[in-house]
Amino acid sequence: MNGKFITFEGIDGSGKSTQLKMLADLLRRQGLDIVVTREPGGTALGRALRAAFLETSETVSPLAELLAFAADRAQHVECLIKPSLDEGKIVISDRYADATFAYQGAGRGFPEEKVLQVIDLATGGLKPGLTLFFDIEVDEAIRRMATRDEVYAKRNRMDNETTDFYRRVRASYLGIASREPERFKIIDGAGNVELIHRDVVDIVTDFLG
Amino acid sequence: MNGKFITFEGIDGSGKSTQLKMLADLLRRQGLDIVVTREPGGTALGRALRAAFLETSETVSPLAELLAFAADRAQHVECLIKPSLDEGKIVISDRYADATFAYQGAGRGFPEEKVLQVIDLATGGLKPGLTLFFDIEVDEAIRRMATRDEVYAKRNRMDNETTDFYRRVRASYLGIASREPERFKIIDGAGNVELIHRDVVDIVTDFLG
Repeated sequence: MNGKFITFEGIDGSGKSTQLKMLADLLRRQGLDIVVTREPGGTALGRALRAAFLETSETVSPLAELLAFAADRAQHVECLIKPSLDEGKIVISDRYADATFAYQGAGRGFPEEKVLQVIDLATGGLKPGLTLFFDIEVDEAIRRMATRDEVYAKRNRMDNETTDFYRRVRASYLGIASREPERFKIIDGAGNVELIHRDVVDIVTDFLG
Repeated sequence: MNGKFITFEGIDGSGKSTQLKMLADLLRRQGLDIVVTREPGGTALGRALRAAFLETSETVSPLAELLAFAADRAQHVECLIKPSLDEGKIVISDRYADATFAYQGAGRGFPEEKVLQVIDLATGGLKPGLTLFFDIEVDEAIRRMATRDEVYAKRNRMDNETTDFYRRVRASYLGIASREPERFKIIDGAGNVELIHRDVVDIVTDFLG
């Protein structure tokens, strides 16, 4: 695979999606061949699976949730990410396996070993070369989420979580940063959007070489 | 768990669903507390996941299919099968883990070891006490499927398979029978429906004690 695989991670409200869009716009203006995608829902199957989850009124078992995200990811890797990397493209995904590790593992309390086993199975071992983690205090993230009308209107299972849940997720992400400092870069998500964008561009430029 | 867990298996067109209905009707008339269910789709989430699969126009990766079936099964086990068994009920499922072993493993050619790993994860090791496998020649099964208008009208990914595919699936089921003869009983699905029903009743009565 000749392409480059970059992922953006962060708790809801961290600003990662805004930053991803700003970066993608810049790279496209520079004439680079990039593929912007997301998890869950980067493929038609993934979007249908996600809709299935959000629409059910049943209590979803944490294991079923873990496996459904894995199904979405397997489809994403095999049908979009790997083929794009094989063509030498730059693939940037809004969330990937680290999100499962943090959300389903630390967040939902699913055993870490099983989460890693499922991630490995679904990805076939494919890891991003660079991950940008947009770090923000949980209280600030919740304040930001509260001001997004759209999110509140479309209130769903994933947003219906507690502060404790997000604290566990954030701590889990920070743990990855301490174990894999070369790949997993922490970016302060609390500052000015333009200044954060400059940091992002510096790190990505360095990575793309 | 005080209940009893029975599964019905067989390739499409083997007559298992007809036999399951006849058995369930009899057991209910006898006043037994039974739960009749199915995979995929035994829960609301499972039905939504199944619909997601059948409706997508994308080529679905075999791994994504395996994991989505696993998600359906995890929800089925945790939210329906285990609670029912805990209440001492008799649970009869139209397909369960053996179907994944035969269809995704032998049928789709997915590595057996990984299929077993995913099955074990999704079921938490829960196996049926009795499985009835309705065996039928593949050519006969295909003839039967061809006469079912409804199936042809609702033609979908799962029916859109080749004779070779069904031969591999049947051989895989027969392999389970040779390895687990106590649990996995072969029933000749080619005969008279009423005679098959008598065989089913004899075996199930013996199992329930």
